[in-house]
Amino acid sequence: MLAAPWTIRSLPDRSGIEILDQTRLPHEVVTVLLPNASAVAAGIRTMQVRGAPLIGVTAAWGIALALRDDPSDAALDQAAALLRAQRPTAVNLGWAIDRVVTAVRPLDVEQRADAAWNLAVAITAEDGATNEAIGRHGVALIEAAAARKPDGEPVHILTHCNAGVLACTAWGTATAPIYRAHAAGIAVHVWVDETRPRNQGAALTAWELGQAGIPHTVIVDNAGGHLMQRGLVDLCLVGADRVAGNGDVANKIGTYLKALAAHDTGVPFHVAMPTSTIDRTLADGTAIPIEARDPAEVLQVFGWHDHARIVVDVAPPGARAANPGFDVTPARLVTGFITERGRCAATRPALDTLLGETP
Amino acid sequence: MLAAPWTIRSLPDRSGIEILDQTRLPHEVVTVLLPNASAVAAGIRTMQVRGAPLIGVTAAWGIALALRDDPSDAALDQAAALLRAQRPTAVNLGWAIDRVVTAVRPLDVEQRADAAWNLAVAITAEDGATNEAIGRHGVALIEAAAARKPDGEPVHILTHCNAGVLACTAWGTATAPIYRAHAAGIAVHVWVDETRPRNQGAALTAWELGQAGIPHTVIVDNAGGHLMQRGLVDLCLVGADRVAGNGDVANKIGTYLKALAAHDTGVPFHVAMPTSTIDRTLADGTAIPIEARDPAEVLQVFGWHDHARIVVDVAPPGARAANPGFDVTPARLVTGFITERGRCAATRPALDTLLGETP
Repeated sequence: MLAAPWTIRSLPDRSGIEILDQTRLPHEVVTVLLPNASAVAAGIRTMQVRGAPLIGVTAAWGIALALRDDPSDAALDQAAALLRAQRPTAVNLGWAIDRVVTAVRPLDVEQRADAAWNLAVAITAEDGATNEAIGRHGVALIEAAAARKPDGEPVHILTHCNAGVLACTAWGTATAPIYRAHAAGIAVHVWVDETRPRNQGAALTAWELGQAGIPHTVIVDNAGGHLMQRGLVDLCLVGADRVAGNGDVANKIGTYLKALAAHDTGVPFHVAMPTSTIDRTLADGTAIPIEARDPAEVLQVFGWHDHARIVVDVAPPGARAANPGFDVTPARLVTGFITERGRCAATRPALDTLLGETP
Repeated sequence: MLAAPWTIRSLPDRSGIEILDQTRLPHEVVTVLLPNASAVAAGIRTMQVRGAPLIGVTAAWGIALALRDDPSDAALDQAAALLRAQRPTAVNLGWAIDRVVTAVRPLDVEQRADAAWNLAVAITAEDGATNEAIGRHGVALIEAAAARKPDGEPVHILTHCNAGVLACTAWGTATAPIYRAHAAGIAVHVWVDETRPRNQGAALTAWELGQAGIPHTVIVDNAGGHLMQRGLVDLCLVGADRVAGNGDVANKIGTYLKALAAHDTGVPFHVAMPTSTIDRTLADGTAIPIEARDPAEVLQVFGWHDHARIVVDVAPPGARAANPGFDVTPARLVTGFITERGRCAATRPALDTLLGETP
């Protein structure tokens, strides 16, 4: 599906992991070797790897590499703290770290490295299976939209940021139903929000949809509301970085604005995510920590010029900027969730029923 | 107020008009001579001059220059048609053209050039007076917000695109109350939407506020909703390109999304414009023509690198884009209008009362 058929892979000799460097896309397909836990942390911080599910998977590998080098309690705690500190909003990061730490801490020191490595393998494989299931559960929404369209008219789907293959190990979350619908011969067309400040939509989503041959059109983040007003969007499909117990959704900054427009114009707004993204320790979205990123991302834009990746200034010298990385979409604006366990409404009872257990 | 103290001026020998080239800001303050009507049309099309009020003023000068060269009916009609065709959404363009054409057509051919020149002088002066009045009527909103804040806390105002001095001849529309409040010693702070695709906020609004010493922070277009949710915006102030008879507002693409967020979070959303922006021939905003601009503006970003103005690609080679230039904010989301005649609600009866005449 991608020119590089993977976003992350471990090297059999355990010398490190290789990642697709997402800061170089779409103009350069470059892989980078991350030989140890501190390199993994740097890769997450600089967004060479990004996307809530993928940073969870990557962090699991970070712990495995740390334990390869030093399986002590101190090294385990240090690696977990280092990796956890890189990105605050996506819960998948902490979820994956906690999962590995919980599994290996009770073990004898000499067993930890192997156990962590094997668990990282399993977490990586699970991500693909989870997203495949999200696609199976979500494609019904696209089929239903297609059935309401005149013959041959594509289903127009708006997405924000990149909740695609590049945010995961395979299928993507928001894109999984789209890839499945396309494979089933349903005509789809994706409106791709460019997603300032880092342009993950223009640079990543447009690239991976292009690789898969799925028709798509890049738009500025300002345009989606107008398209919905004009009846040019059949549904919105986005990912999530953290879902609170009541269904509030933290996702890339600007998601809230698109959810408002969808609600105002009667366009269904669905959020696709693995259940590991649900954080029932939080009563609602107001408690989700929002990452404040470098103001330089706002004052500058990176892009390609004469085959070189360069940064241009778009604001006056000395200008100040603020750069919140995420916002919270209230559950009342979310039509429904698509998870590997099935679909459900964005309410606490529906999430509790879906998860089938008391939090 | 600006490093160049004017956005447009006529040359006394009638050899043309000079404009501040807004495509070079904020890194270069460059003026350009437009010697004739076709150069004026090109300046409007390439957005060397932009902003609804300013393109109206500029078009008036375009007609005056055309009649200087050829005062015939044919030349008048040709210039009017050429200038009108450059930008479809802002009604001020047609308003200014119609005003000059209506005034000069009944005149003898040899009187037309002088009459058009003098009317262009008057229209230019009126724009400044109009915006000064908008500032007088609008500052009360900022004063009231300041009275509700703890002592010394600035009033936080969010604006979109550039409805500033650079969109006019003086004061600006949305910025006029802000400049007046600042001059009166009220602490204000402006959230400046960068306003993709052309970044008029980051490049122009941030520049002119900086020139005036008004505290401001640049944000991506995605961020405003989050700031409003967190209580960090006291009011929104934007301009307009055309207001329909029922109060629907066409303005820069993305305005609708900010109005939705303001409505959802209880933040007042005010639109400042001269009454010449009101088009009562349109029953509502659905009839306002929306300019479809060059997709390259979406796929590329212009900025400065090593003191050179360059363009970078932000999307994959061959990607498609759509680029609607404006959207329509329904009147129900607008708290009120600020015009040179005073403030009023965004309703047909209120607009009719404000204008004091039957449409």
